Amino acid sequence: MEKSKYLIAVIGGSKCDQATSELAKEVGKIIATEGAVLVCGGMGGVMEAACKGAKETGGLTIGIIPGGNKQEANPFVDIVIPTEMGYARNNLVAGAADLVIALQGEYGTLSEIGVALNLGKEIYGINTWDIPGIKKIESLEKLREIIKKSIYSA
Amino acid sequence: MEKSKYLIAVIGGSKCDQATSELAKEVGKIIATEGAVLVCGGMGGVMEAACKGAKETGGLTIGIIPGGNKQEANPFVDIVIPTEMGYARNNLVAGAADLVIALQGEYGTLSEIGVALNLGKEIYGINTWDIPGIKKIESLEKLREIIKKSIYSA
Amino acid sequence: MEKSKYLIAVIGGSKCDQATSELAKEVGKIIATEGAVLVCGGMGGVMEAACKGAKETGGLTIGIIPGGNKQEANPFVDIVIPTEMGYARNNLVAGAADLVIALQGEYGTLSEIGVALNLGKEIYGINTWDIPGIKKIESLEKLREIIKKSIYSA
Amino acid sequence: MEKSKYLIAVIGGSKCDQATSELAKEVGKIIATEGAVLVCGGMGGVMEAACKGAKETGGLTIGIIPGGNKQEANPFVDIVIPTEMGYARNNLVAGAADLVIALQGEYGTLSEIGVALNLGKEIYGINTWDIPGIKKIESLEKLREIIKKSIYSA
Repeated sequence: MEKSKYLIAVIGGSKCDQATSELAKEVGKIIATEGAVLVCGGMGGVMEAACKGAKETGGLTIGIIPGGNKQEANPFVDIVIPTEMGYARNNLVAGAADLVIALQGEYGTLSEIGVALNLGKEIYGINTWDIPGIKKIESLEKLREIIKKSIYSA
Repeated sequence: MEKSKYLIAVIGGSKCDQATSELAKEVGKIIATEGAVLVCGGMGGVMEAACKGAKETGGLTIGIIPGGNKQEANPFVDIVIPTEMGYARNNLVAGAADLVIALQGEYGTLSEIGVALNLGKEIYGINTWDIPGIKKIESLEKLREIIKKSIYSA
Repeated sequence: MEKSKYLIAVIGGSKCDQATSELAKEVGKIIATEGAVLVCGGMGGVMEAACKGAKETGGLTIGIIPGGNKQEANPFVDIVIPTEMGYARNNLVAGAADLVIALQGEYGTLSEIGVALNLGKEIYGINTWDIPGIKKIESLEKLREIIKKSIYSA
Repeated sequence: MEKSKYLIAVIGGSKCDQATSELAKEVGKIIATEGAVLVCGGMGGVMEAACKGAKETGGLTIGIIPGGNKQEANPFVDIVIPTEMGYARNNLVAGAADLVIALQGEYGTLSEIGVALNLGKEIYGINTWDIPGIKKIESLEKLREIIKKSIYSA
């Protein structure tokens, strides 16, 4: 009998610019190399880039998708959970997370940030909504440290 | 065969100060006298005050509550819809609304604002989160006008 | 301060034969004339016929629909609650009901029956799945009596 | 870029007798040794036994739980997804499954069977509800064969 796995959510827009995509990929890599499972909304943009990064470093990825068809998930999702719940699936992503990382994003991400804060989740943000409660991250090194500590103390 | 009823959501904290409570009650009264149905999360604070206002002027109130027990709704809810969905029920409140009015509120309200904006709902705010996309209301007279027009053009 | 309204769910297929449609309409009429609110999944077949019956006798109808677009509801729904939850919205219909009436139906109805029984709801069936826990109704007169008593003792 | 993992849901009561528990454990073992991921409601009874079996043979287990607290999951769940959706989480379990195995169970299981059939999932049953659409399994050897084939042809 062991503890359940440590899940880190990456939230952000289903479309994003190249720089954010690169960043998301690095975040995914960090999550995987530190031994956590990446959970996300399973679609494109930030989600796909983060999953790609996690897969490239041997990680496990979960996509909780808005629709009912597993084919809709991005190709780097290992475990697809179709919800047919539309945006309400954001609550599941936030709920599953032991730690949340927000990258950019629009209203969907804002809503997910609200949900995560409401659930009392620790949430770290990079270039995202400026909401009290979100801890801003200045560098990926800092993010790796935070993740390491969080997993250790879980 | 007629059109379905026009639903106006009032969102805000389940606890609120006296001034906000008074305001919410007035908002509820306006909704009811203009002939719309009030929909909310069915709990206390802003929700209860708005429902009370609506009931005092003969309106119909719907409470989409987080738990599974109808008794948890505030006493001014006519139609209780228990969801057992926790905060995810916010998506239902926003989804049911033809127009959203946000009063104060904390992270739960922020999340609901995000959901409403994401769904493309028109959202008016009084002393609430300062998020691009929310239209600020300066007076109850203005609010009544907006509601009147929205119902008319629905 | 009054009690919240008594809600009766009518569940059954979104397509049905003429006889079942007639029956559903009668059930809707009984619900409305006895002063209860009809709640259903808001779509066609049994749901539409029941709503039509309720509207013809001045009742109030609620449709908790699977999609996100209010236009998808049948034209006899007063209050449309879009869920974007697909079939999971059946849980909301059952949860909202103080009493459930099942007419015919296929797997969707079976699932809803399971949910209703699981929630401990009283459920009456006409020509529907033969599941222990469902009380069979032999006539509409009997149904009216049951509804009358249930509302009275609520 | 690879295919997403093959998920097999095990559904059944959160309490069960010793014989069913043994059976569920064997089913979990088969799922894991054939290389599929076990998904379930994450609680006790059939779910716990199946997870235990899967873990004993090195498998990966997912528990989509009704509540909001990860601690509520049984100790053999690797990936806990809290939903705060109560029984409506059954829709997620069924939706995530590429194949469903039902063991005994009461109304909750009945509801889940209805959901799974409604979604067009292939569903195999052992000593469970006698519903048209469920394929009865006579032996664990037969079950292993079916799982092998299903994974292969996925």
